[in-house]
Amino acid sequence: MANTTYTLVLLRHGQSDWNEKNLFTGWVDVPLTEKGRAEATRGGELMAAEGIAPDVLHTSLLKRAITTANLALEAADRQWIPVKRDWRLNERHYGALQGKDKAQVKEEFGEEQFMVWRRSFDTPPPALDDSSEFSQAGEERYAELGDDAPRTEALKNVIDRLLPYWEGEIVPDLKAGKTVLVAAHGNSLRALVKHLDGISDEDIAGLNIPTGIPLVYELDEDLKPVTPHGRYLDPEAAAAGAAAVAAQGQKH
Amino acid sequence: MANTTYTLVLLRHGQSDWNEKNLFTGWVDVPLTEKGRAEATRGGELMAAEGIAPDVLHTSLLKRAITTANLALEAADRQWIPVKRDWRLNERHYGALQGKDKAQVKEEFGEEQFMVWRRSFDTPPPALDDSSEFSQAGEERYAELGDDAPRTEALKNVIDRLLPYWEGEIVPDLKAGKTVLVAAHGNSLRALVKHLDGISDEDIAGLNIPTGIPLVYELDEDLKPVTPHGRYLDPEAAAAGAAAVAAQGQKH
Repeated sequence: MANTTYTLVLLRHGQSDWNEKNLFTGWVDVPLTEKGRAEATRGGELMAAEGIAPDVLHTSLLKRAITTANLALEAADRQWIPVKRDWRLNERHYGALQGKDKAQVKEEFGEEQFMVWRRSFDTPPPALDDSSEFSQAGEERYAELGDDAPRTEALKNVIDRLLPYWEGEIVPDLKAGKTVLVAAHGNSLRALVKHLDGISDEDIAGLNIPTGIPLVYELDEDLKPVTPHGRYLDPEAAAAGAAAVAAQGQKH
Repeated sequence: MANTTYTLVLLRHGQSDWNEKNLFTGWVDVPLTEKGRAEATRGGELMAAEGIAPDVLHTSLLKRAITTANLALEAADRQWIPVKRDWRLNERHYGALQGKDKAQVKEEFGEEQFMVWRRSFDTPPPALDDSSEFSQAGEERYAELGDDAPRTEALKNVIDRLLPYWEGEIVPDLKAGKTVLVAAHGNSLRALVKHLDGISDEDIAGLNIPTGIPLVYELDEDLKPVTPHGRYLDPEAAAAGAAAVAAQGQKH
């Protein structure tokens, strides 16, 4: 039996303003709702109750992930750990869908197109025009990207830009023996889970990650999960949460 | 006239539980009160209103400074900036006074001894025993210090451990053209201000830094303040706050 060598904790941000409104968010920098803040705090309490003490934090550049991490670490009494932030952990850029109502998009373009845009592995939505109010073109925080900043992404694009960060920044922390917390987004975490568990391009479409519930991966020395698909700290809530994510786009 | 080349913003944490209770805190990791959290948010609002946008954050390893920074950056919509944390920005270690009531210490040891311990440049209080409930000996976050972790400090000791961080971590950020926010503590910020303004060992005793009000230093190319003593973003509140700090140790 494989032995646990490394511990990785994934945490998807809690409910944001636009989750609540059922809008495509992507790179738009939307804050958490009060419910989202409470989810984040509970995530930290779950870690503390299990004796999981992160030694280092990695987040995206988006406030819903950053605030989730801040609140979770406050609840876990681990605020002092080092933190690295990087755009490579950002949510998938949703292109021209950013700012649009999920149910409206479904109605306007039909269920099939809606599901292609949401879950196709490699077909991105139309690109977002730089002049859109929902564009991040020219934002200071992405200055290093210059004209290479994404204007739309499929999950494949997310994987391509996330893996260099995984290899270059997260793996070295794991190999240094640190318990690593990654606070990020539905699709950047799906990209990471796909890589860790070796999930196929087809099967990843069916995988949903619930918000605010720490997902613990114990990894062997080859960085393979000791328990495939990891372990949620609150499995019942995680199952309900994943079902809720899958149901997004329904009228409500 | 000297030109502003670099911008440095100093922010002392808002009221903590032990500020409110009038206890010596030092390295004890005490949370902010609700008032302290509100001060931090207002500090961020003041920065945003003045158009001061930090590009990088430096904090201590203590949650009252970290939470202050988190809340201020949330209010200023700058949560995404990189952050570095270091014990060298910690509050002065108050030795055997940690956890003691300021008014009681004054009564027990007399006004003169009290003021020596609070404001002497180079006479530290008695060392704190490692077995004390208020000791940080063996805390994971200070593991790198080993047996060199302080057990008491005078302001001189704070300066000696802070300046290498200033030179090694903060100055390079300034020289890279970044607006630097330092969220720290009464005495670590006094140490820094003493260095910046060239205040004498005697005169620094009379300098008090109020909580939660950003203190902006515009520095010339030699890192000398363009305006001596910097500029508080809310000068009236700063004056009242400094007077309140000076009055600590009074019965209340």
